Amino acid sequence: MAKQDRAIRTRQTILSAAANVFEKHGYQAATIAEILSEAQVTKGALYFHFQSKEELAQGVLGEQEQRLGVPERACKTQELVDVIMLHAYRLQTDPMVRAGVRLSLDQQAHDLDRSGPFLNWGEVLKRLLDQAQAQGELLPHVVPRETSDVLVGCFAGVQAMSQALSKYQDLAERVCSLLRHLLPNVVIASVLTAVDISRTRGVAVFTELSEVLDEEAGIPVG
Amino acid sequence: MAKQDRAIRTRQTILSAAANVFEKHGYQAATIAEILSEAQVTKGALYFHFQSKEELAQGVLGEQEQRLGVPERACKTQELVDVIMLHAYRLQTDPMVRAGVRLSLDQQAHDLDRSGPFLNWGEVLKRLLDQAQAQGELLPHVVPRETSDVLVGCFAGVQAMSQALSKYQDLAERVCSLLRHLLPNVVIASVLTAVDISRTRGVAVFTELSEVLDEEAGIPVG
Repeated sequence: MAKQDRAIRTRQTILSAAANVFEKHGYQAATIAEILSEAQVTKGALYFHFQSKEELAQGVLGEQEQRLGVPERACKTQELVDVIMLHAYRLQTDPMVRAGVRLSLDQQAHDLDRSGPFLNWGEVLKRLLDQAQAQGELLPHVVPRETSDVLVGCFAGVQAMSQALSKYQDLAERVCSLLRHLLPNVVIASVLTAVDISRTRGVAVFTELSEVLDEEAGIPVG
Repeated sequence: MAKQDRAIRTRQTILSAAANVFEKHGYQAATIAEILSEAQVTKGALYFHFQSKEELAQGVLGEQEQRLGVPERACKTQELVDVIMLHAYRLQTDPMVRAGVRLSLDQQAHDLDRSGPFLNWGEVLKRLLDQAQAQGELLPHVVPRETSDVLVGCFAGVQAMSQALSKYQDLAERVCSLLRHLLPNVVIASVLTAVDISRTRGVAVFTELSEVLDEEAGIPVG
């Protein structure tokens, strides 16, 4: 393995360990010592990549962004739905995403700047809404910046409610319900009719994406 | 002061202290010792009212419900908006409400049942939606239970986002924006036109309610 590959892998190991520790204890109670012991790397290796607990947390928060991409769609409303439903699916299945979402809602993490995920998520959704608007998919009164902010805030709360009430068992259903409530006031009816906002959309997009990545890596599909 | 009044006041003192400590440290890190020192009551007094940290937290969570009442309106959609906007106003001004909302979103509070506020809030909003539906205020496709769940989840997230991005400075605006996005898909247009969902609605309802309470207590108004 090349030196650079090894460094990337070590960084990933540390971030996974940090995600587990933050998820277990919250930001305030988490310690670098516990992250070290969970990651089983040397102190030197950890401090080479991250100078502080805050940098570790920002690293975990940043990992969410890496996972927001979906296959491009002609219909930008569908692409928007896909980003949201894929994120819901990952919340149930990917500890790194779960840790990131929890950190961004950790109101005890006083000295941690938690604005990043809200703002980045907002940017991703706003860009898609801008494109949807340019293609005539949106109702005339829609202001993309305002709608993207509402979507990000609502998603954060709906996932928290699903976590508190069902440990994410009903997450896909709740997110669909959210989209069914919001989109008719954002997207024109003829577009909305053609958009798939069913409960299984998240896993479908995830499967599609995995196949694309496998193909790119030269792994035969199916 | 009658014995019972004193007991009620002591209970209130303890809950306020608990709210402060939970808000500062989160549920997991909060200790009964610190709540005792903050409340400046005897250990005996505290254990007379609350047997454990969990009971203290449930007490704080329960205080939110005491504050959900608004003056009755002929238009039930307006009453629904008033409950939501008043809650937003209280989040900015009432430490007990703030502590309750934070506790209900505290994903590190593993052994605390946080479902209560979500369910109670849902019940309050569902009842109002049921009444609005009976009066013909809602669009035909609306299922009150589903819409109340969406409203509760969305509110929880929008307040968390406002807290993370502006320390609640933009909360009223964000909640208005949420209602402007959701209500047109829930309420018929002629009703919605007559409903006040402006940013200042929360403080207006709070003032109205304070005057009603003063009148009931025999304190002259104005």
